[in-house]
Amino acid sequence: MITVLRLGHRVIRDQRVTTHVALTARAFGADSIIISGERDDGVIESIEKVCTEFGGGFGIEYAKNWKRVIEGWKKKNGVAIHLTMYGEDIDDKKEEIMEKCKERDMLIIVGGPKVPFDVYKMVDYNIAVGNQPHSEVAALAIVLDRLVGSEGRKKRFMSAKKRILPNPVGKTVVEGLLG
Amino acid sequence: MITVLRLGHRVIRDQRVTTHVALTARAFGADSIIISGERDDGVIESIEKVCTEFGGGFGIEYAKNWKRVIEGWKKKNGVAIHLTMYGEDIDDKKEEIMEKCKERDMLIIVGGPKVPFDVYKMVDYNIAVGNQPHSEVAALAIVLDRLVGSEGRKKRFMSAKKRILPNPVGKTVVEGLLG
Repeated sequence: MITVLRLGHRVIRDQRVTTHVALTARAFGADSIIISGERDDGVIESIEKVCTEFGGGFGIEYAKNWKRVIEGWKKKNGVAIHLTMYGEDIDDKKEEIMEKCKERDMLIIVGGPKVPFDVYKMVDYNIAVGNQPHSEVAALAIVLDRLVGSEGRKKRFMSAKKRILPNPVGKTVVEGLLG
Repeated sequence: MITVLRLGHRVIRDQRVTTHVALTARAFGADSIIISGERDDGVIESIEKVCTEFGGGFGIEYAKNWKRVIEGWKKKNGVAIHLTMYGEDIDDKKEEIMEKCKERDMLIIVGGPKVPFDVYKMVDYNIAVGNQPHSEVAALAIVLDRLVGSEGRKKRFMSAKKRILPNPVGKTVVEGLLG
């Protein structure tokens, strides 16, 4: 099981980026997201709307205290991975992480601009996707791609009202309640 | 040569996501970005600031008319690839695209919410990263990862004032003008 923890969300300022993080988590094979920082029901509703339309099986919740989430994860023997441009490259650590997570749940932590240094010390891995500044959305996509594989993106979402089929030039949307 | 074309940028609303798109383009091996939509010097300056700090060799410009950009690209025998959740999966088309782009420049087009249907018809490829709604930042990261490889992320940026070295727990920043 893979959960994404989004740190330090701010209402209005981060709404779109946090929504991109959550949709990327869902589409690339994570099972749920926990958003911490300021409580933002708008973001939660917009993700739930996508789940209703394109299929469920993805959990979303708010947690006031991120520290307690990480501590709880570690207590339950889960593996915590923090994505940061300062970390070790995913391509160098991928196999070690996959081996370690064979029978343990994975918490992937993505921060905003100012991540408390405690996060770096509490986690099992600080992982980078290149050591250049870019985007937590890009980092999450690549890390899930490496750890789940493209199977993550190809999984079928249950109870989807809509499904999109690949089309070289137009838009193919299949509607109706699909299994 | 790879250029990214960002469609339909809106001042304020899209500032952060367009910045993430541009930084992802730079960090994953594209050579430049063209931003169309509303002119936004703030975004251009913030990308230029990153280039000054972390190294240059990445072009950024504004184009009022996106259609002219795509038409010009096609006239110069370039290949245009539009990223959309409705397209064909990158993993199915990757080899064909790489073969076609061996000696031709690549324009990767990322849209906002409402991309004119003309875009779908003008390009050589409409490409998806999974057929689920997620993020143009995630899609761009995966497509550049597939087409450039992780070498794109490992290239050295010229004239960087700062360079970050991988660190399992802390932050290692090397400063001073680096080649």
